[in-house]
Amino acid sequence: MNQYQCNTQYLRTEDPNIMSHSFHVSRSEVHLKWDNALKPVHTVDSGTEVTFDLMDGGYNQFTATSTAADVGNFDAAFADPAFGPVYVNGAEVGDVLRIEFLDLKTATYGWTAVLPGSFGFGLLADEFPEAALKIWDLETHKEEGYTVFKEGIHIPIRPFLGVVGLAHGEEGQFSTIPPYDTGGNIDCKHIGIGSMLYLPVKVKGALFSCGDGHAAQGDGEVCGTAIETPMKAKVKLTVEKGKPWVVSPHYITKPIGTTAVENRGEYAALGIDADLREASRKAVRGLINWLVGEKGLTRVEGYMLASVAGDLKIAEAVDMPNYAVACSLPLSVFVKAPYL
Amino acid sequence: MNQYQCNTQYLRTEDPNIMSHSFHVSRSEVHLKWDNALKPVHTVDSGTEVTFDLMDGGYNQFTATSTAADVGNFDAAFADPAFGPVYVNGAEVGDVLRIEFLDLKTATYGWTAVLPGSFGFGLLADEFPEAALKIWDLETHKEEGYTVFKEGIHIPIRPFLGVVGLAHGEEGQFSTIPPYDTGGNIDCKHIGIGSMLYLPVKVKGALFSCGDGHAAQGDGEVCGTAIETPMKAKVKLTVEKGKPWVVSPHYITKPIGTTAVENRGEYAALGIDADLREASRKAVRGLINWLVGEKGLTRVEGYMLASVAGDLKIAEAVDMPNYAVACSLPLSVFVKAPYL
Repeated sequence: MNQYQCNTQYLRTEDPNIMSHSFHVSRSEVHLKWDNALKPVHTVDSGTEVTFDLMDGGYNQFTATSTAADVGNFDAAFADPAFGPVYVNGAEVGDVLRIEFLDLKTATYGWTAVLPGSFGFGLLADEFPEAALKIWDLETHKEEGYTVFKEGIHIPIRPFLGVVGLAHGEEGQFSTIPPYDTGGNIDCKHIGIGSMLYLPVKVKGALFSCGDGHAAQGDGEVCGTAIETPMKAKVKLTVEKGKPWVVSPHYITKPIGTTAVENRGEYAALGIDADLREASRKAVRGLINWLVGEKGLTRVEGYMLASVAGDLKIAEAVDMPNYAVACSLPLSVFVKAPYL
Repeated sequence: MNQYQCNTQYLRTEDPNIMSHSFHVSRSEVHLKWDNALKPVHTVDSGTEVTFDLMDGGYNQFTATSTAADVGNFDAAFADPAFGPVYVNGAEVGDVLRIEFLDLKTATYGWTAVLPGSFGFGLLADEFPEAALKIWDLETHKEEGYTVFKEGIHIPIRPFLGVVGLAHGEEGQFSTIPPYDTGGNIDCKHIGIGSMLYLPVKVKGALFSCGDGHAAQGDGEVCGTAIETPMKAKVKLTVEKGKPWVVSPHYITKPIGTTAVENRGEYAALGIDADLREASRKAVRGLINWLVGEKGLTRVEGYMLASVAGDLKIAEAVDMPNYAVACSLPLSVFVKAPYL
């Protein structure tokens, strides 16, 4: 193999059903850099469905039995692995690759971590120097569609892939941690099952890879991690011509139609600042302080809850010199007393 | 009067119903600076309902018959007027004022402008040097709950107040254009009828003012204006103690309960950049380019549509060095062919 750093100690059993698919990408077909010189693991025609058995965004270094003590051993060099790449026939530079998310299945567990130190992940990394790890049970309430954060707080399961990307046009190796115009670690929670993502093709064959399964995440992924989970994915890859406006990732979410939706309102804190990033940090801090003051959570619980279920929205970006960013939490996560 | 710059040429007839309220703030009780030395127009007890007859965020300089030619005469010195202040008995420094939005009524028309030049409002101000003005009919389809952008594009009416704030703790005069920790021009579309806003009290009596009615707006208000409209408002002002976490505006949206909701999906462009503001600008530009390329809008139509119905969401703020911001548009604004 010509991939990067396949560390076999974290590879576990493959799902036999998914492995039987004609075009299947396994856990061992992993790369930790975007590199358009990588050899494709499959070559498929436009319109082909491809299955993936994905290690999680932490390269499966945490498991259902991990504890906060294991965070110190986390090797950040293995963060955000991507699986592939898949060469799509007919994809030329200037085309667009449409990715349809046909199926996404979480593992039976997930994890959310605060990863401090040199890794320094998270919007409030400077305020959270202690390692923390939450293991989630994704099995017990799977049918009801939620997972339990702690007693009385339920998080709806909304699976998506954090990493979905194409090879860069430039030669060389690029970290899989940041997102790029070609996609990658975009961590966009809106692109779930039934959604379509459009990515600009920068090399012949597009060279598609994905990874970083999330069982749930809020807009912003503020503590640096979502509900991270190994995931099985089925996607359909289709070449589209004549969409020159797709110079960065574009997406369409699934049209659900008219459904009964429960809306218990949301609580939000606004961060106001002349710097948009600082306004975002203040908004997150405000929501955490409310969760601590009113709901009795610890600060790190508040930070994790904001990351997996809170949403960063830019309320206004024009009333200079100050931005207003909201960090909102749907009150439906609280099983009791949704309104104050 | 001891208020700032009451320009009587824009004052029009008051609504006789709303004027009969015990505690009513009229259009002439206007100020263009936050100043804790302003004399209150009313003194009310905690829990009192107060009505307001508000000039719009442009001091009613535009009307239902204005055109783009009038934008050049717009006097920015009158932007974002606030009406009040109202002194609330029992509000002490360190308390919180809870504002409940009981009723918000738009005028029969609204406007959205691109205000270029020295005013330079808008997230893409440098790319839109030409003045533009759209007048909205807020009457014809009021019962159905929408207003028409152009044939085939309907915008749901979701009224809220852009300016809701308290006096600052510091002496002096502060522009009403930017938002502050005490609120003001927060332009937060989520705080509609039935919502509650919490603001930190910085002076005895709180000194509450509001203004800047919006018939609809997206998160970000990216072109610099929403659907601006003169508004009648009824709010309830209540002093709360013991919420030390409210150091900036916090809010709770109305719990609607279980309702039938139509979801036709949304289209979004992601902006990827090492600077959060640039990522936001790229996202808006991406959505506009899609509206031009796929939906046949002009660029300035796309910019206005993004401002009144598109939402800026921070997809991820942690995968450094690059942020991902989405600018999304609900596909339900298109009357036909919601999905591509």
